[in-house]
Amino acid sequence: MEDYEFLLSIAIILLSTKFLGLVSKKVKLPQVVGSLVAGLLIGPAFLNLVPSSEFLSNISELGVIVLMFSAGLEVDIKELKKCGLASFIIALIGVIVPLIGGYLTFAPFNESTADSTKIFYENLFMGLILTATSVSITVETLKELGKLSTRAGNAILGAALIDDILGIIALTLITSLAPSDDSSVEKTAVGIVLLKILLFFIVAFAACFIFHKLFNDWTTKTGKDMRRFIITSFVFCLALSYIAEVGFGVADITGAFFAGVAISGTTECRYVTNRFETLSYMLLSPVFFASIGLKVELSSMSGKIILFTVILSIVAILTKVVGCGLGALACKYNTKESIQIGVGMISRGEVALIIANKGADMGLIDTEKYFGPVVIMVVVTTIITPILLKLVFKDKDDTNHKDSGLVENINKHIQYEKDIQSM
Amino acid sequence: MEDYEFLLSIAIILLSTKFLGLVSKKVKLPQVVGSLVAGLLIGPAFLNLVPSSEFLSNISELGVIVLMFSAGLEVDIKELKKCGLASFIIALIGVIVPLIGGYLTFAPFNESTADSTKIFYENLFMGLILTATSVSITVETLKELGKLSTRAGNAILGAALIDDILGIIALTLITSLAPSDDSSVEKTAVGIVLLKILLFFIVAFAACFIFHKLFNDWTTKTGKDMRRFIITSFVFCLALSYIAEVGFGVADITGAFFAGVAISGTTECRYVTNRFETLSYMLLSPVFFASIGLKVELSSMSGKIILFTVILSIVAILTKVVGCGLGALACKYNTKESIQIGVGMISRGEVALIIANKGADMGLIDTEKYFGPVVIMVVVTTIITPILLKLVFKDKDDTNHKDSGLVENINKHIQYEKDIQSM
Repeated sequence: MEDYEFLLSIAIILLSTKFLGLVSKKVKLPQVVGSLVAGLLIGPAFLNLVPSSEFLSNISELGVIVLMFSAGLEVDIKELKKCGLASFIIALIGVIVPLIGGYLTFAPFNESTADSTKIFYENLFMGLILTATSVSITVETLKELGKLSTRAGNAILGAALIDDILGIIALTLITSLAPSDDSSVEKTAVGIVLLKILLFFIVAFAACFIFHKLFNDWTTKTGKDMRRFIITSFVFCLALSYIAEVGFGVADITGAFFAGVAISGTTECRYVTNRFETLSYMLLSPVFFASIGLKVELSSMSGKIILFTVILSIVAILTKVVGCGLGALACKYNTKESIQIGVGMISRGEVALIIANKGADMGLIDTEKYFGPVVIMVVVTTIITPILLKLVFKDKDDTNHKDSGLVENINKHIQYEKDIQSM
Repeated sequence: MEDYEFLLSIAIILLSTKFLGLVSKKVKLPQVVGSLVAGLLIGPAFLNLVPSSEFLSNISELGVIVLMFSAGLEVDIKELKKCGLASFIIALIGVIVPLIGGYLTFAPFNESTADSTKIFYENLFMGLILTATSVSITVETLKELGKLSTRAGNAILGAALIDDILGIIALTLITSLAPSDDSSVEKTAVGIVLLKILLFFIVAFAACFIFHKLFNDWTTKTGKDMRRFIITSFVFCLALSYIAEVGFGVADITGAFFAGVAISGTTECRYVTNRFETLSYMLLSPVFFASIGLKVELSSMSGKIILFTVILSIVAILTKVVGCGLGALACKYNTKESIQIGVGMISRGEVALIIANKGADMGLIDTEKYFGPVVIMVVVTTIITPILLKLVFKDKDDTNHKDSGLVENINKHIQYEKDIQSM
């Protein structure tokens, strides 16, 4: 007898994430907030309508891979080169400060009984979750305020592009170095791990370079949209994800991101992006976002966890403001601009969730206890960003100047984030 | 530790089905033939690259549901009404003769040790597999020969539309009445089963009627393509599939087909169709077609099974020629036209495989032994149809006449079959 429950599970996930996603949109929040709440509602925390299954967890994993692949598709190498040193420094300090902040915040709360190495990586992973900025809500707000082309607006746009790359590098290093939950895997020396990462980067760069060239020639010569381009892209993405994880011990999503970068800039990039968006919003991302909510168990929200949630959210906000703000000050932005830049980088989104999910898979995050705080932190930073932005950009005598050409590029980037979130 | 093998499995399935699908296309066969061969090659019969898993079987089941939903989307109720009695009679006899032919062919070969009721349904299921025509290759060939607008061509087009509906009715009756493999399910009296089917039809018609009305009003009023239309359609399809199977003991694919019919004819039908095609060709159908090939184990191809394969293929060809031909004769087509019509209805395609898959799920078909013969039968009928069509349409003095307007409609229908097969 076949199992038909999974049909009902998909129907419930699609309906609830879409419905609550649209409600979020009504109150001017990203739809991803609604999707998370939907997962929370239909999960064990409340209605318990969707039993967990291998099927849903694999669909969710595939969803993460396609999301990271799509993020890679939106990377524009030419624009990245134009971003300049200031954006790089803002992004870099804006990654380091939350990483350390997350580590220090989690350390006193972490109840893990693992060995000290594992605990170190568990704490570091909480920091890693805090690194990834999602600027779509910032851009929406700045557009609304007419401040997107200010010096601060431009700095945010540039830093956001670089933030993605730095986040991937940090993720790759930490996931590779962290001890595996699987006791059958022998512990590897740090030197070997770093060598494997280096080897992976060499192999991935070579593979991506060759694929980019061949794919671009092939698609340009054919001159029309064809399904074989989509399938070829998908196979490349899956293969690189698999090889990263199994061949080099590097996170599969790093491989997926690289595969996306390889296809970005080719003539058929827009077509590939569109088709993957369809696959994503029709099945994969709703299952992923809901699965995050599904993993939250409110019953384990003790007083201590609630305190941690509050502190984590505050630290998430402060570390980005301080980190990016210091970076901006160092790059000769004035104090007001530096605060604006810092505030613009506060909001976290799907990448924070993707990283948290990866940590759960690796046994570095106790989902029962700490998924709730992470999800709430993402929602809080998303809600507070537009409010704070309106405060710090209030002054009327800011004038729009110095459009560095980044605005158009970021629009592409934002379109991608919106596409994900509008599921 | 997460399982990453499924990423590799998907990559292998996508690559092999696409590659061999394109090879099939090169030699003017439907791509589905290549996909089946791909499944055979990567499965236990040869390379054994893709282990079976709950994930793949659920994706495949979802693929079947989306395929049947898409088939429903292409049903044009208005055109169906125009088809006329002749098409109905041709289709009806063209369903009954293969049903009986399949039964009688399988009876002496069936080695099942089940009770006589179950054996009756096992044999009947083989007949059911032979009922479903797939006319895309016929239409391609007739177009090429310039014979699509002949009287015979028109009759084939009309009968093919009705054949789908009759096939669904036969499938619904047989799957509902057949004993379940699951011994925990109590045997239900025939009267109750028929009552449940009747109830299902009433509920489904009512649900589809209301959904059609609401969906059409909503989408027309909104006036642009929106993702929420797609998600709503998908949820309706999944819900009706689930309710059919779990609530009424009717095949889930019957529910999916009805859901498709409910959306056909609405203003957003084309948009819904396109998005489901994307979901289908990017992931679901390749997994389904490959999974059929994966289930074939050539090691169990004994002399007896090979004999059965040969006879089944011959019976598949003859029963459609005889059944549809007799129907045509009864409707006053001349002998030559009747043979042309019969030959035009020979080829079987994805629906035969979908039915076989359903039979396997219900424990009515021993996949190890009889999936090979079924797959080969589908391939043989697909290969032989254009060859025979060229023979029977050879005569030069056939002239194109009497275009009943079906040509345009069938083009839509064929586009759907091509879309499926061009994955």
